[in-house]
Amino acid sequence: MDNRMKRTDRIGIMIKILSDNPGRIIPFSVFSDKFSVAKSSISEDIMHIRETFEAFGLGEIETIIGASGGVRYNPVTAPCENKKYLEELCSRLADPGRILTGDFLYYSDLIFSPSISKKLGYMLAQRFLSSRPDCVMTIETTGVAIALMTAQALNVPLVVARKTHRITDGSIISVNYLTADKHVATMSISKRSIQKGQRVLIIDDFMQGGSTIKGMRELLREMDAIDIGTGVVIESANVQNRVINDFISLMTLYKVDKETGTVDIRPTEL
Amino acid sequence: MDNRMKRTDRIGIMIKILSDNPGRIIPFSVFSDKFSVAKSSISEDIMHIRETFEAFGLGEIETIIGASGGVRYNPVTAPCENKKYLEELCSRLADPGRILTGDFLYYSDLIFSPSISKKLGYMLAQRFLSSRPDCVMTIETTGVAIALMTAQALNVPLVVARKTHRITDGSIISVNYLTADKHVATMSISKRSIQKGQRVLIIDDFMQGGSTIKGMRELLREMDAIDIGTGVVIESANVQNRVINDFISLMTLYKVDKETGTVDIRPTEL
Repeated sequence: MDNRMKRTDRIGIMIKILSDNPGRIIPFSVFSDKFSVAKSSISEDIMHIRETFEAFGLGEIETIIGASGGVRYNPVTAPCENKKYLEELCSRLADPGRILTGDFLYYSDLIFSPSISKKLGYMLAQRFLSSRPDCVMTIETTGVAIALMTAQALNVPLVVARKTHRITDGSIISVNYLTADKHVATMSISKRSIQKGQRVLIIDDFMQGGSTIKGMRELLREMDAIDIGTGVVIESANVQNRVINDFISLMTLYKVDKETGTVDIRPTEL
Repeated sequence: MDNRMKRTDRIGIMIKILSDNPGRIIPFSVFSDKFSVAKSSISEDIMHIRETFEAFGLGEIETIIGASGGVRYNPVTAPCENKKYLEELCSRLADPGRILTGDFLYYSDLIFSPSISKKLGYMLAQRFLSSRPDCVMTIETTGVAIALMTAQALNVPLVVARKTHRITDGSIISVNYLTADKHVATMSISKRSIQKGQRVLIIDDFMQGGSTIKGMRELLREMDAIDIGTGVVIESANVQNRVINDFISLMTLYKVDKETGTVDIRPTEL
């Protein structure tokens, strides 16, 4: 009886540790030391957790073999579940009260809500899991929450490019880029933030023509880093002369019209 | 046997759900419906989880009685553990290679690392748990990661004030404030972001004289919102004419000197 209780506790604590550390490889020895049990018992527990997680759609428990091996929790969810979540979010976004002057859509309350930014950030991470990025990059400010959560799911650092030069960044690399409304703007990044050869995933909240993303890619080129992909939360449809085409989005905004109170936004087709 | 297995799974899944939703009250009925068991069994499971969490320092499992009752996971950790974590972080921050021209300290790599921002954000949340804020407020850009994590731990939205007016914020409230170097600057916030009477916790990464915090407090006054406290990650010591004094910090920066390669930073005494 006592032993059984201990197993329930052990599995519970392992689930807590795995949930709190998505994307991180945790060596079996961490658990066997913590609970003073044989690695074979931990291995059985992990198998049990994997089955439970599979059965209840709680994510993927991956076993990595070898010297730097262990167990990793990848917070992936079923595509149909993700689609349902995005559909519900789209219906919240389609509230005519969100339409601003100039036919912009107000959504910063949603992307700065921790539970929503986590869900969206994790969905983007899921799409780039196999690309194994070394870090995630975004640009201030509205992209930060989502990108931080993507970085969390992948267990990599986040790097934030700036639109203004900050003295606290130290030496910087900067590039000029052409904004959507045809102005020349500057973005910069601390030289310390990304190493040569690092594999970088670009994440942003919104994409219209893609000029900002293009600017970030240029920063990566300047730093001899590798651009491994781009994910955005919302892409605007009906854009002429888009400057980049290789990206994924979670939702597509087809129309915002203040006069008729219309917002047409839908989950992007996979 | 089958039943016992089920209990291990049930407790494991409950731990996963609680861990993934810090600060949120989850009604017992959510679990009893999900697992098709009596509320009394769920109640026993919760007691078991509470004991395990206490024994292993995994956080607080709080039972809330009444109509809107249920169970809430508060990710609080022991003060001695927090102090140890901050001491280790201080020794990383004290690396002379982090000293920038002008005796600034480079730390944005650390505060944008998801695991560090989560730990620091949760520590700040812990200090304001009993104040029950309705939302967390910060100002772009470097405060966003920490503040998002504080908001996550408290299960409340994050609101981000801007140093530049953005068209996608809609109608704004703005105030002028005097910066540390005696310039007049403007900060603004979307009118939609905070409601009258809301209890707001201000979080920022760094505080010198406190002029930015003072500006945020002024924004709150303009919105008829209630300022319930201020938490910063790092406060600078030896500041003359500090404009605010009622705040808490996690670490205190006593000295940065590029010439001698000195960085003196320590956990703030409780």
